Amino acid sequence: MRVLLALGGNAMTAKDGSATPAAQIEAITTAMESVAALVAAGHEVVLTHGNGPQVGNILVKNELAAHVVPPVPLDWCGAQTQGTIGFVVLNALEAAFAAQGIDKPVAVLVTRALVDPEDAGFTHPSKPIGRYLPHEQAEQMMGHGQVWEDRGEKGWRRIVASPRPLEVLETATIRTLIDAGHIVVAAGGGGIPVIRREDGTLRGIEAVIDKDLTAALLADALEADALVIATDVDHAILDYGTDHARPIEQVTVTDMERYAAAGQFASGSMGPKVEAALQFARIGGRSIITSLHRIVDAVDDDFGTVISN
Amino acid sequence: MRVLLALGGNAMTAKDGSATPAAQIEAITTAMESVAALVAAGHEVVLTHGNGPQVGNILVKNELAAHVVPPVPLDWCGAQTQGTIGFVVLNALEAAFAAQGIDKPVAVLVTRALVDPEDAGFTHPSKPIGRYLPHEQAEQMMGHGQVWEDRGEKGWRRIVASPRPLEVLETATIRTLIDAGHIVVAAGGGGIPVIRREDGTLRGIEAVIDKDLTAALLADALEADALVIATDVDHAILDYGTDHARPIEQVTVTDMERYAAAGQFASGSMGPKVEAALQFARIGGRSIITSLHRIVDAVDDDFGTVISN
Repeated sequence: MRVLLALGGNAMTAKDGSATPAAQIEAITTAMESVAALVAAGHEVVLTHGNGPQVGNILVKNELAAHVVPPVPLDWCGAQTQGTIGFVVLNALEAAFAAQGIDKPVAVLVTRALVDPEDAGFTHPSKPIGRYLPHEQAEQMMGHGQVWEDRGEKGWRRIVASPRPLEVLETATIRTLIDAGHIVVAAGGGGIPVIRREDGTLRGIEAVIDKDLTAALLADALEADALVIATDVDHAILDYGTDHARPIEQVTVTDMERYAAAGQFASGSMGPKVEAALQFARIGGRSIITSLHRIVDAVDDDFGTVISN
Repeated sequence: MRVLLALGGNAMTAKDGSATPAAQIEAITTAMESVAALVAAGHEVVLTHGNGPQVGNILVKNELAAHVVPPVPLDWCGAQTQGTIGFVVLNALEAAFAAQGIDKPVAVLVTRALVDPEDAGFTHPSKPIGRYLPHEQAEQMMGHGQVWEDRGEKGWRRIVASPRPLEVLETATIRTLIDAGHIVVAAGGGGIPVIRREDGTLRGIEAVIDKDLTAALLADALEADALVIATDVDHAILDYGTDHARPIEQVTVTDMERYAAAGQFASGSMGPKVEAALQFARIGGRSIITSLHRIVDAVDDDFGTVISN
């Protein structure tokens, strides 16, 4: 089967959230053992990944060095993480392949996602990124045109646009590489956001993209047999935190939409995953949300929260 | 013809050396018009590029934010620039293609270069990178295991290993993409340096790689018909700075080796280009050093300094 696997940022940092290079390499090395197992089970895999903690780190560097070197825009930060995470994934996935006796080339593509400059996200930015700052410093950044929001006790936080991805611009290239037998790593961080100018050319734009939405888009464009959103829990949970909490296993689009509309899924974590999974399932795809170390069971035996029409 | 084109860092920053994002985008946009002209002339192009100024900027950010976020190693800095420069090249090259009526896909690959952990560069680092610092600050960095050198009036500068690249690990993937009609951007910054551990797995290592040496290696591996090292002068010059200075046009490997041995080429600028050009010419290749806006004349009409056996 062709599987579009979306890896959460949590799979790429230490359990305590640490994003030192050593912690990232260690976490990715572990994560790639699961990815290799999916390939060993005979599946074609296209891998995409988040980049939240990594972009957070880069933003701090931008800010603290701004008096010496020019900060780079948010689209460049995303591009940077495609380079670093892609690099670490290459080394780690090849090592996992060697350990599991797999002979497959891996390719990491710098990948853009087209967004609409008229997307509501740009007029009403809503995605918090980076670190919390005291009001005074936040005000300084607002002076540079950024939007910051008072988040209570923790301080102020930058809010950016998270427009809906419309197209992964490297889709044909990804397909070429799959057809040539590659495991492809693409659209890291949801893809580098670009808009199309009136003259038809593209330019980067300051935004972040939900990596799961891009994964759903790519799963469709590549005619994947399954979209697997790997996270740190085996299932999405109904009535989470109550004494009748229960895992969602096989579920229809209609039921899952009903649960989502009833506010069953937290907006900052499971909510976006469910939305992306629904997007692919609505057009006839099979979407699975589960933990990374269960992805083979997910694809082969319907383990996890499996949404389909 | 299949052309391996190596683009200098000067093609990616403003004339005054400015490396703001806007300046980089503008410079790359201009540079890509020349690259597109080479494609329009009917050639298969693989593009590689330098990253010196960009890595310099990242190092400053690492340093100034080190008390808040963990600095990333030099190999990651290179990976970051493959992402950002690759991204800007994608947009700019596609725009130049559209303007020149070319319909070709462009692919940017995260690319590693294998080096030998026993390379003399590691025991005797010699490549200066990043900004100058006063002695006191340099001493602090030396406390973290870095090598810094007194460069006189300007201050101290970090010195790193610049090992010889042995293999571009994504060569087969590049070939797959060329065969499918892509213009491929690869091995930016000379490739991300990795070494092979005793267990066969790869890991990144702190070093920088001469992008022209990697280009020569790749030109050979891809059986390119020409290696073009694009810079800001039309020719390498004999007796530079004297009243009998003269351009080198067609030249044999033997003659060029003699000029190099006589110290005709500056070690920090033309010297490494000549060394890389010679490397490809010695094994029967055709190497050309010329300015970026003359690359079509170079490939089609032997303009520039053309070295062959």
